[in-house]
Amino acid sequence: MAKEVVIVGGGVAGIFVLRNLLAKKDKVGEGMHLTLIKRERSGWESVCGLPFALRGWYEIGLTEIQKPQFFQDQGVDFRTETEVVQINVAEGFVTLDTAEVLKYDYLVLATGRTPSMPAVVEQAKLEGVYTFNDEDDAREIEAAMNAEGVEHAFVRGRGINGLQAAVAFATKGLKTTVLGGPPSLLPSALDPDMGGMLKEWLEKQGIRFILERKPLTALKGDGGQVKSVVVGDEEIPADIMVIALGAAPNADLAKDPELETGESGGFVTDSAMHVRKGGCSLNNVYAVGDCVEVIDGITHRPRLSQFASTAVVQALVICENILGELIEQSTLYSPYAPCISPSIADIGGLLVGAVGVTSEAAARAGIKTVNGKATKLIKARYFPGATKLTMKLIFDAFTRKLIGAQLVGEATVAERINELAVAIYAGLTAAELRNMERCFDPSLSQLVDVTTDAAEKALESV
Amino acid sequence: MAKEVVIVGGGVAGIFVLRNLLAKKDKVGEGMHLTLIKRERSGWESVCGLPFALRGWYEIGLTEIQKPQFFQDQGVDFRTETEVVQINVAEGFVTLDTAEVLKYDYLVLATGRTPSMPAVVEQAKLEGVYTFNDEDDAREIEAAMNAEGVEHAFVRGRGINGLQAAVAFATKGLKTTVLGGPPSLLPSALDPDMGGMLKEWLEKQGIRFILERKPLTALKGDGGQVKSVVVGDEEIPADIMVIALGAAPNADLAKDPELETGESGGFVTDSAMHVRKGGCSLNNVYAVGDCVEVIDGITHRPRLSQFASTAVVQALVICENILGELIEQSTLYSPYAPCISPSIADIGGLLVGAVGVTSEAAARAGIKTVNGKATKLIKARYFPGATKLTMKLIFDAFTRKLIGAQLVGEATVAERINELAVAIYAGLTAAELRNMERCFDPSLSQLVDVTTDAAEKALESV
Repeated sequence: MAKEVVIVGGGVAGIFVLRNLLAKKDKVGEGMHLTLIKRERSGWESVCGLPFALRGWYEIGLTEIQKPQFFQDQGVDFRTETEVVQINVAEGFVTLDTAEVLKYDYLVLATGRTPSMPAVVEQAKLEGVYTFNDEDDAREIEAAMNAEGVEHAFVRGRGINGLQAAVAFATKGLKTTVLGGPPSLLPSALDPDMGGMLKEWLEKQGIRFILERKPLTALKGDGGQVKSVVVGDEEIPADIMVIALGAAPNADLAKDPELETGESGGFVTDSAMHVRKGGCSLNNVYAVGDCVEVIDGITHRPRLSQFASTAVVQALVICENILGELIEQSTLYSPYAPCISPSIADIGGLLVGAVGVTSEAAARAGIKTVNGKATKLIKARYFPGATKLTMKLIFDAFTRKLIGAQLVGEATVAERINELAVAIYAGLTAAELRNMERCFDPSLSQLVDVTTDAAEKALESV
Repeated sequence: MAKEVVIVGGGVAGIFVLRNLLAKKDKVGEGMHLTLIKRERSGWESVCGLPFALRGWYEIGLTEIQKPQFFQDQGVDFRTETEVVQINVAEGFVTLDTAEVLKYDYLVLATGRTPSMPAVVEQAKLEGVYTFNDEDDAREIEAAMNAEGVEHAFVRGRGINGLQAAVAFATKGLKTTVLGGPPSLLPSALDPDMGGMLKEWLEKQGIRFILERKPLTALKGDGGQVKSVVVGDEEIPADIMVIALGAAPNADLAKDPELETGESGGFVTDSAMHVRKGGCSLNNVYAVGDCVEVIDGITHRPRLSQFASTAVVQALVICENILGELIEQSTLYSPYAPCISPSIADIGGLLVGAVGVTSEAAARAGIKTVNGKATKLIKARYFPGATKLTMKLIFDAFTRKLIGAQLVGEATVAERINELAVAIYAGLTAAELRNMERCFDPSLSQLVDVTTDAAEKALESV
């Protein structure tokens, strides 16, 4: 009899588990029947594409990569606008909001996250206040920012989502203010010196930053519509407002309170991405994506890694492990390695990338670091596209191994983050990284790259 | 008394030893006096920039990055148009063609290479036949290709230099034919399937390829000027001709015949880049660049690696080792690691990169391989610059470690070659490479990258 696999949640995490299983379905002799339950209306939605839609690069609709029908046509029981209200891992079923009960052989929890919302905002109950987490949010923001008379935008939060919303507002010509804590932007990815470069870039686009420990004391409205916010002593006009203060894993849900969650609030899993209950791994229940707690690859402490890129690797791991059980005599198995969260974003035309720990995160974990930082053109100056790149490399002061990297520039940042991710994963030292031969063509690279310079700086500093 | 360092040769290898030592000169208590002897007129010349000058991107003169005066102003005895005619390592001096004798404490041999020339070409003694190895060659080729009545170009050799010359000729509108052996282009870097992609690209630019084991039987001239070549039964018009058949290390020079050279013809060195004589390393004589034999990082066999990028790493190693001796109580030291030759070239607008071994080179070394190949857009299709990239990954069939990679595409190739170089250096397996998290922003990358796909293909094939 075909094995029942039920996936709860249809964000990138759930969709990628589904896609991977679909692609290898034929390898399972007894067959697999796949069910995906999602709250949203969409099929496969690229939420990472939404900031660019808001910036006017294309229609929001383009970010729906596949409609539900695409999966239904392949025999998937793909249910939208449906929620799971109870999970029973003891007996192996989930209950839907329609009261329907679905038995499963394998359950995959891809329940996502819920954006945080400060009490002062909740209590104000004003229109014109949004989170920026999914397609519906994007459509609402788009409608609101294009409405008549909208001149001022206010963003609470200086993470990627908040900055992407601010860039969209500034691009549209709105007077935009971002409120976040000190000292700089994207503090989970960038040290203040690197975050400061991004801040300067965005200030040139007209975005104002208030990066102080000032609370958002009040929201003022007019006819139920937000009109201004009070920050410290200052009242700042705000016709539209985005709250982007991070998001909590949807890991409690009151569905099975005994599933283990960690200090980050996400599901605790073992290396195979099984969730745990009563101190044991559940061999047929997996969790994936924003609702999961990962182990940091450098500090070995639990944390969240709410990136699509993290979800995709976890989805691959889960698929391999399910198939490893279902395919006869298979040795298929993937462990999920500790996470170093390589990340990249185009924020208003500046590319900002990071991987591993920041200096501050290392210090908080008791790791002493040696840093090297360099700025250089990415290719010979007489070639088109010879823009500057700033690289900061963070090494463990004891082992001299690379444990973090941060890049700010206009090109090559994504690919370099991937290179440095491999270097961190492989434990390369500052000396090894400096002495690595790098390919050269003057129209594409430098004979002595900024990586070599940054590693050399770290070596010189000790 | 200041230590005398004499560098023989002023290509990128010699220049980088000089630059590195200059930058750290002050660290040596007793001081260093630096002498560089070179045959050419130029100071620091970027020969890698010459193909683009020929393609009309800028003047040839721009490729001279520094004039000799630049180094002379820093106290370097920088001598151009001068040759070393004898080296005496027993007594520690070199003799110049001016009969002057220079004593040294440290000697660095950066003697470069001499382009190969088939006997049939030598014997024809015709004008209009060039090698493409240095600035003088480029100036001669430029003058000749722009002369009146020049319509047909012929290139002997399908390596990087030959193809770059062919592209320059085709760009200029000359009817261009390239003669090389089978089966495809750049055989030392690319497997035939990947080389075939480059061939197709260049054929669209009007370049004709004859890739067969056909000898160049004769050159025909008119008034001492080449007019055609005979290949097999065919006479091919050729008003200008470039011979690009590789280059032999300048390692004999009849200067000190007892310095050890290897089967590749290059100087044999130890890990510190010391040359050897009578079975022993000479602790104050180094060799660097095109004249050196390296150990291949995969096959562990000796070979050449005549890239500027190789020279630059060796120059760094030599500088560290000289300073390690001269700076009191220093532990400074760099070993030169076995070489995996990451390489990249823009050949007529197509980027071609490679690192490690080809399938064929692996087979020749008795290494069985498992390959994975994939083609994919480098970013989401609705973003500008979403071009296709083809990646071929070559894994050791026993260890499953990455031992080679080849890329053909229009962007991101250089940075990816560097990533894959780190992966080879660190011994990453196909499964590790496939499961690596990669940074994602749809305007810059794919959620599942071509690297993941190529690694997956390799895993599926076993």
